[in-house]
Amino acid sequence: MLSAEDRVHPAFARLPPWVQEKLSPKAIDYIRRVHHWVETECVPAERVVKAQLAVNKWKTPPLIQELRVKAKKEGLFNLFLPKSFGDLSPGLTNLERTMNCHAPETGNIELLAKYCNEGQKQKWLLPLLNGETSSAYSMTEPDVASSDATNIACRITRDPKDPDTLVVNGRKLYGNVAWNEDLSVYILMACSDPENPDPWKRHTTIIVPKPTPGFRIVRNLTIMGYDCAPEGHGEYIYENARVPAANIILGEGRAFEIAQGRLGPGRIHHCMRLIGQTERAYELALIRATDPRKKPRGKLIGEFDSNIERIAAMRIQLDSMRLVVLNAAHTMDVHGNKSGRYAIAQSKIIVPEMAANIIDECMQMYGGQGLTQHTALPEMWMYARFVRIADGPDAAHRHQVGRDQLKTAAAIKGRHDGYAKRYEELCRTWGVEKEEFA
Amino acid sequence: MLSAEDRVHPAFARLPPWVQEKLSPKAIDYIRRVHHWVETECVPAERVVKAQLAVNKWKTPPLIQELRVKAKKEGLFNLFLPKSFGDLSPGLTNLERTMNCHAPETGNIELLAKYCNEGQKQKWLLPLLNGETSSAYSMTEPDVASSDATNIACRITRDPKDPDTLVVNGRKLYGNVAWNEDLSVYILMACSDPENPDPWKRHTTIIVPKPTPGFRIVRNLTIMGYDCAPEGHGEYIYENARVPAANIILGEGRAFEIAQGRLGPGRIHHCMRLIGQTERAYELALIRATDPRKKPRGKLIGEFDSNIERIAAMRIQLDSMRLVVLNAAHTMDVHGNKSGRYAIAQSKIIVPEMAANIIDECMQMYGGQGLTQHTALPEMWMYARFVRIADGPDAAHRHQVGRDQLKTAAAIKGRHDGYAKRYEELCRTWGVEKEEFA
Amino acid sequence: MLSAEDRVHPAFARLPPWVQEKLSPKAIDYIRRVHHWVETECVPAERVVKAQLAVNKWKTPPLIQELRVKAKKEGLFNLFLPKSFGDLSPGLTNLERTMNCHAPETGNIELLAKYCNEGQKQKWLLPLLNGETSSAYSMTEPDVASSDATNIACRITRDPKDPDTLVVNGRKLYGNVAWNEDLSVYILMACSDPENPDPWKRHTTIIVPKPTPGFRIVRNLTIMGYDCAPEGHGEYIYENARVPAANIILGEGRAFEIAQGRLGPGRIHHCMRLIGQTERAYELALIRATDPRKKPRGKLIGEFDSNIERIAAMRIQLDSMRLVVLNAAHTMDVHGNKSGRYAIAQSKIIVPEMAANIIDECMQMYGGQGLTQHTALPEMWMYARFVRIADGPDAAHRHQVGRDQLKTAAAIKGRHDGYAKRYEELCRTWGVEKEEFA
Amino acid sequence: MLSAEDRVHPAFARLPPWVQEKLSPKAIDYIRRVHHWVETECVPAERVVKAQLAVNKWKTPPLIQELRVKAKKEGLFNLFLPKSFGDLSPGLTNLERTMNCHAPETGNIELLAKYCNEGQKQKWLLPLLNGETSSAYSMTEPDVASSDATNIACRITRDPKDPDTLVVNGRKLYGNVAWNEDLSVYILMACSDPENPDPWKRHTTIIVPKPTPGFRIVRNLTIMGYDCAPEGHGEYIYENARVPAANIILGEGRAFEIAQGRLGPGRIHHCMRLIGQTERAYELALIRATDPRKKPRGKLIGEFDSNIERIAAMRIQLDSMRLVVLNAAHTMDVHGNKSGRYAIAQSKIIVPEMAANIIDECMQMYGGQGLTQHTALPEMWMYARFVRIADGPDAAHRHQVGRDQLKTAAAIKGRHDGYAKRYEELCRTWGVEKEEFA
Repeated sequence: MLSAEDRVHPAFARLPPWVQEKLSPKAIDYIRRVHHWVETECVPAERVVKAQLAVNKWKTPPLIQELRVKAKKEGLFNLFLPKSFGDLSPGLTNLERTMNCHAPETGNIELLAKYCNEGQKQKWLLPLLNGETSSAYSMTEPDVASSDATNIACRITRDPKDPDTLVVNGRKLYGNVAWNEDLSVYILMACSDPENPDPWKRHTTIIVPKPTPGFRIVRNLTIMGYDCAPEGHGEYIYENARVPAANIILGEGRAFEIAQGRLGPGRIHHCMRLIGQTERAYELALIRATDPRKKPRGKLIGEFDSNIERIAAMRIQLDSMRLVVLNAAHTMDVHGNKSGRYAIAQSKIIVPEMAANIIDECMQMYGGQGLTQHTALPEMWMYARFVRIADGPDAAHRHQVGRDQLKTAAAIKGRHDGYAKRYEELCRTWGVEKEEFA
Repeated sequence: MLSAEDRVHPAFARLPPWVQEKLSPKAIDYIRRVHHWVETECVPAERVVKAQLAVNKWKTPPLIQELRVKAKKEGLFNLFLPKSFGDLSPGLTNLERTMNCHAPETGNIELLAKYCNEGQKQKWLLPLLNGETSSAYSMTEPDVASSDATNIACRITRDPKDPDTLVVNGRKLYGNVAWNEDLSVYILMACSDPENPDPWKRHTTIIVPKPTPGFRIVRNLTIMGYDCAPEGHGEYIYENARVPAANIILGEGRAFEIAQGRLGPGRIHHCMRLIGQTERAYELALIRATDPRKKPRGKLIGEFDSNIERIAAMRIQLDSMRLVVLNAAHTMDVHGNKSGRYAIAQSKIIVPEMAANIIDECMQMYGGQGLTQHTALPEMWMYARFVRIADGPDAAHRHQVGRDQLKTAAAIKGRHDGYAKRYEELCRTWGVEKEEFA
Repeated sequence: MLSAEDRVHPAFARLPPWVQEKLSPKAIDYIRRVHHWVETECVPAERVVKAQLAVNKWKTPPLIQELRVKAKKEGLFNLFLPKSFGDLSPGLTNLERTMNCHAPETGNIELLAKYCNEGQKQKWLLPLLNGETSSAYSMTEPDVASSDATNIACRITRDPKDPDTLVVNGRKLYGNVAWNEDLSVYILMACSDPENPDPWKRHTTIIVPKPTPGFRIVRNLTIMGYDCAPEGHGEYIYENARVPAANIILGEGRAFEIAQGRLGPGRIHHCMRLIGQTERAYELALIRATDPRKKPRGKLIGEFDSNIERIAAMRIQLDSMRLVVLNAAHTMDVHGNKSGRYAIAQSKIIVPEMAANIIDECMQMYGGQGLTQHTALPEMWMYARFVRIADGPDAAHRHQVGRDQLKTAAAIKGRHDGYAKRYEELCRTWGVEKEEFA
Repeated sequence: MLSAEDRVHPAFARLPPWVQEKLSPKAIDYIRRVHHWVETECVPAERVVKAQLAVNKWKTPPLIQELRVKAKKEGLFNLFLPKSFGDLSPGLTNLERTMNCHAPETGNIELLAKYCNEGQKQKWLLPLLNGETSSAYSMTEPDVASSDATNIACRITRDPKDPDTLVVNGRKLYGNVAWNEDLSVYILMACSDPENPDPWKRHTTIIVPKPTPGFRIVRNLTIMGYDCAPEGHGEYIYENARVPAANIILGEGRAFEIAQGRLGPGRIHHCMRLIGQTERAYELALIRATDPRKKPRGKLIGEFDSNIERIAAMRIQLDSMRLVVLNAAHTMDVHGNKSGRYAIAQSKIIVPEMAANIIDECMQMYGGQGLTQHTALPEMWMYARFVRIADGPDAAHRHQVGRDQLKTAAAIKGRHDGYAKRYEELCRTWGVEKEEFA
C-alpha cells in the first residue's frame, strides 16, 4: 500500500485510489525509481539529444546509448514484458507499468518473444532486448486500403529453384527507415497464399534482416513535417528481395494470429505514452498561465476566467482518459488481451483525439511561441495526431465496436419486449387503457 | 466475487473489472434484486404512472405508493444511506449503489440524518424515510446570482416580540412545488446575519413546514416545458413567513457547513441516475437501429456505417463517463466527501453534458418520432439538461477546479526549474551548447 | 437604397451590405413596417396568447384573430408568396422577406397556389389565404423510414364500386392535429400505384377535408414535452377514409413533383424563423449579461471574460448562418428552387443545429431560470431542435449533398492529372528528378 | 456579367450569385487568367520548388524568380493593391481579388505605400513591388504578452550624441528570418516613449535595413516542425542596433495608427489563402474517396455513407466560410476597413479553425499517407494552425468583439422594456392577468 506521503508524490498523485490500492510493493518501487529517472535523466536530456541528432541524424545518439547502459545497471530496462514471459519479465502487470517504453520496439519484442522459435529468438530477439539493435514492423501499403489488413498485397513466393528461399515483392509505408544505422530487422506481413478461401489465412509474417538484396528505401516519410530521426518512418520497396524460409514466424498463413497478439497491447502503450505527454503539456500550460512576464490587458494568463475554465476542462479530460486507459490495462490483466478488445478500442478511439485537442489548447495558450521549437508541444501534438492513424484510424475502430454492439441488440430487444408484456399486465391491474405506439 | 454467469448478467456486465472485484456478497445480492425490480416493476410501469398523473397531477400516483410498500417489504427502500449512518444504512458503499434513488429526497434525508437533533429527526426525518411525505430544498433565488451562494438574500430575522419565532422574507426558485399533496417540508437556506464579517457564516438553514403562514406558491416552474409533476419545481414567496426557532438545523450561521455536506453526494447521485438513463436511451437506439420496418434507402438504420460509428461513439462515451462516476464514488468511500471534491466536480462537469449529447443522438436516430412521447427519450434529455444547471452550472464547477489547479503551478514550476538546471549539467557533460529560449 | 439612418435601424442593421444594396424601396418599406409590427404587436402579445390558450387550447386565440384582421388592413398579410404568383404576391423576392411566416401554412399555400386547378383553389386556397382556416401536411409515417419518401406506404385505392371515390388506409405522424377547430384540410401524400416500375411515380397527393369519415386522431404528439397548441402535431389513422377523386392535386402519381416544389422554400422559411428566434435569444443573453442584480463573485455576468468570449462566439455564428440563409434565398431568386438545392441543403444542415446550440448557451447563461417559462428560450430551443428533424434529419441532407459532390470527383481528378503532366514538364525544364508517390 | 459557361468554370463556380453579379469585366478577365496561372504554373511547380530549396534553403528558388518575371509580363503581379492606391493598383476591389498573394509582403507593401514619404517609397517600396527584395514585419515579443500590443517593450531611444540616429534594444519573435538572401528590410514596431500618458502613443514604427549593426538572428522558428524556408520565421535580437531617424514611418508615436491600417486587410488575405488551400485539400479528399485502389471492406472510401456525410459536412463548412470572407471583403470595399472591423474579426475567428479542422479530416481520409509528404495536406494544415495565432489568437479577437457587443446591450434593453410596457397594455385590453417574473 502507498504511504500517505507517496500518495501526494507526483509519481502517484494522479492515480485513482483503485489503482493505488492495487500496486504491489515491487511496482511502487519501480514507479518511484522510473519517475526519478524520467525527471532527472530523460526530460532534461531532450535538447542535448536533439543537438546530437543534428550532428548525425541516422544514429542512436550517444546520450541515449549511455542511458541504456545506465538503465540496465539500475534494472530499469525492458520493464514492459508481462508476467507471462517468465524470466524476461520484471513481473509487472499492465496496470502497473505507467512509464514510457517506445514503439515499435515493445510490440516487436513481445511478438518475437511470443511466436519465435528458439533459434530465431537467439538471433533476433536478444540483441533487441539488449538495446543493441532496433526493429521495424512492416505492414501498411500505399496501393491498397491496408487498414483492412486482408487487402495487404505485398507478395511472398517460394523460389521454384530454391524452395528454402522466399522471394518478396511489394511496396510498404511505415516501418522505421533503414537509414538508421542501428536498425537490424523488418518484421514483414505479406501475402503468401492469395487463393486460400479463408482470407484470414492468406498472409505470413517473416523476418527480413538488414541488409537484404532487393530491399531498398525510397524515402523517409515525414509526419506533419517531422523526420522522427533516428528511427524515421520508411517508404521502401521489396523487389525480388530474397529471405531465408527459416525466417518465417510461427508458420505460413499465420500472420493474422500474430497481428492480433501484437496490436492490442501496442495500442495501449501508445495511449500510455500520450497520457504522459499530455500531462507534460498541461504542466507547461500551468507554467505559462502563471508566468509573471505575460500579462495581456494587465492580468496573468491564469487570471482570466476563460483560461481558468480551459485549465479545468483540460485537467478533467486528461484524468478521464487516464481512467479509460487504466481500466483497459487492468481488463487485459484480468481477462486477457482478447476479452480486453473493447476496452483497448475505447482507449484507442478516445485518447489520441483528446490528447491532441488538449495539447493544441496548450499551444494556443503559449501564443506565438506555442507552435515553435520553444517548447516540446508541437512534437507532442504531432505524436498524438500520428496515433489517431497508427494501428488503424479512429473510424476503423469505431466500426468494429459498433458492429459488435449491434450484435447485442437482439437480447436487449428481448428485455424490452418483456417490459411491454408487463406493461399490459399493469394496465389490467390498474384499469388503465394501454397506449399503442407505432 | 461475481460468478462467471453474473459477469455477463445485464446488471453487472457494464461494470469494469475493478468494480466487479470490489462488490461484497451483500452488494451483489442487492444489485441483482434491484435490477430485477427496475426491470419488472419500474420501467414497465412508467406509462401507467403517467396515466394516473393525468387524473391527479399533484399527488403521488397510487402505483408508486404501492411500489413503496412492496419495496419496503423486500428491503429495497432507502438503500442509499452510507454506512456512517449506522442502523439507517443498508451498509452499501457509494461504489456499490448503482440503482436509482430520486432527488432531492436522498440529499435532504442525508442532511436531516446528519445535522438534525433527535427531536427534529423524529418529526421530520422518519416520515421521509418511510416515504410517507416528501421534502424540498430551497436555495436558488431569482433576484441574485445564487450560484455563488454567498449572494443568497432571502432574510431570516427574529420576531422582536417573540424571539422563538423566525420571520422569513424572500423569493425562491426551485425546491418542489407545494401543490404536491405529499410535500411536508421545505429545507430553507437564507441569510440571518448579513453584517457578519465572515461571508460563510451569514446564512442559516431552517425547516419550513407546509403549510406555513406567509408562504405561497407563485407558479410551478416548467423545465423545458415539462411540469415534472407531482414533485414539480416551485417558484414561491416567503412574506413575513413565521417559523419556530426550534426548526433551525445545526445552529445559526451554519448553512454553508450543511450545504457542503449535502451537495457532494447529491451531485454523484444525479450522475448515477443519468448513466442509467443514458444506458436506456442507448438500448432504444440499438432497437431502432435493428427495427426491420425502418429501411431508408433499403438498409436497416444499423446497416449504415455512419450509424455504426455513432453507436460505437455513444457506447464508448457512456462507458468512459461511468468510469468517471465510479471513480468518484470510490474516492468518496476511501477518502471522504471532502477529498473527493475534485472527482465529484469531474463527474458533475462531464456527465450531464455527455449524457445530454448521447440522448440527443438517440433521438435523432428515431427521426420524427424521436422528439415525441413515443419514447421516454425527450424526458431523459430534459433531465440531463436540467442537471447541467442544477447544483451549479458547469462553468461554476470548472471555475472552482481551475482555481485549485492553478495553486499547483508553483510546485510544478519548481520541478521544471530542476529540468533546466540538469539540462545545463548535461550540456557541460556532453559538450553541447546550451540553447536559450525566452 | 437604405439611408444612413436606416442602416443602423435594428430592422436593417444585421443585414450584410450586399443585401442592403439589393432591397427595393417597396421591400424597405415592408421591412420597416413588419419590424414595427413584430416589436409592438407580436412579441409583447406572447404571454397574452398563452393565457388565452390556457382557456381554450385547440382554438386560434382571439388576440391572434384580431391581429390577422389588423394585418390585412395594413397590407402585411401573406407577404411570403413570391413574384411568380402574380396578384397573390406582394412582389417581394426570397431575399427581401426577412419576417416570420408560420409553417406549414406557407408551404401548403404555395403548394395549392402552384398545383391546384381553379376549382380547388376557390374551395381550399382562398380561405387559407384569408387566414379563416388552417391546413396540415400529411407525409411522415411511423411504420416505415419515411425520411426516404419512396417508402411511404399509406394506401390510396379507388372504390371499385364508385371510381370517383378514393379509399385511404394508413397511419401518419405529424401534420397538425385535427382537434384545432380552425383546421380545415390535410394535404396527404400516399401510395396509389405500388407496382409502378418508377418509384418516383407511385405516389399521389390529395386533399383530405376535415371531417372525413374514416379519419381519426390518435393523439397530439408533444415535441420535447410541448403540445404546440393550437396547431399541435397529430398522430392519426386513415381507416377506409373516403375522399372524392376530385381532390387529387395535379394528377395521379405526381406527388414527388409536388413535394420537391414544396420542400425547398419551406426549409428556408424554417431557417429564417430560426435566425429571428436566435437573435432574440441572443438579445436576452445580452440583457442577462448586464443585469445589475446578477453578480456572481462580485462581477456582472458580462464582465467575466469567459462570457465575453461566449457572446462573441454566438454573435459570429449567428451572423455566419444569416449569410448562409440569405445566400440560399438569393440563389433561389436568381437560379430557381432546383438550382438552389445545394444552398437550401447547406442552410438546412447548418442553421437548426447552430441555432439550437446558441439558444442552449443563452439558457445556460440564465442559470436556474434559463430552462423555465421565465423566458421564451426553452420553446425557441425546442423549435430549433424540431427543425433538425423536420423535413428530413441532417444526416439525410448530408447524404444527398455528399453523393452529389462525389459526382464531381472525376472532373477534379482530370485537373489533378493535368498537374502531374505539367510537373513532369517542369522537372525536365529545371533538371529536377521527378518524385514518385504511390 | 458572367456568361453561362463562365458560371460553371472552376474559377467562378464556387462564388455565390451575389458575388458573380458584382464582378467587373476586368475582374472576370483577371480571375480567369489567374486561375489558369495557378493551375498551370503554380500548383504543378510545388515539388520542383521544394527540390530547389533542398539545394539552397535560404534563397528564393530560381523557378519562383522566373515565375515573377513571367507574371509581370502577363500583368499578374501585385494585383492586391486596392483602388485607393491609384496607379499602383490594378483597380480590383477586395471582393474581386480571390487569388493568392503572400504574407507578409502584401501587408508590408500596403503599409509602405500608405504611410511612407516619397523618399522612403523610392528606397524601400519599389524593390518590393518589383519582387526584387522581400520584407519582414517585426512586432511579436517573447518577454511580454504582445497580443496586447501596448505591452511591446523593445526600446527605441535617440543616441544623445547623434540625434539623427535611433538606438534599438529588444528581442523579437516572428518577422521573417534574415538568413533569406532576398530579405532587405524589417518594419519594426517598438516603444519610443514609455512615459506617454496615452498608451496608444508610446510606440513608433521604423524601417530597419538589413544588415544593421547590432541586429542578429538567434534562430529560425519552426512552425509545427516546418522551417518555412526561404522566408522562415525569425527570432532575433536588437542590441544597440543603430538605425537612421529618417527611417521613422509617419512620425514618432504613430505606430498604432499604422498597425490598425495594416492588420485589417492582412487578416482577410490570410483567410482568402486558407479558403484556396482548403478547397485544394477538399479536392484531394474527393480524389482519395474515389481512388479505385483503396477499398477497405470491399468498398470505395466514398461509398461508405459515413464518408459521404463527412464530404458533405466539409463542403458545406467550406462554402459557409467563403461567404463570411467575401462579405468581409465587400464590407471593407463599401464601408472601409474600420467599419469592416467586425466582419474582419468574424473571418479571422471562424476561418482558420474551420480550415484546420477540414484539412485534418482530409488527412484522416488519407490514412497512413495523410500525415506524410505524399500530399501537401500537412503543410496546409500547418498554415491554417499558424493563422489561428498569427495577428492575434482567436481568444483576443473574440474578446474584442464581445466587449463591443456588450455596449449594445443598453439599447436592446430599452426595446425589451418597450415590450413589457406594451404587454401591460395588452393585458388590460384583453382582460388577462399580468404575469410577474423575477
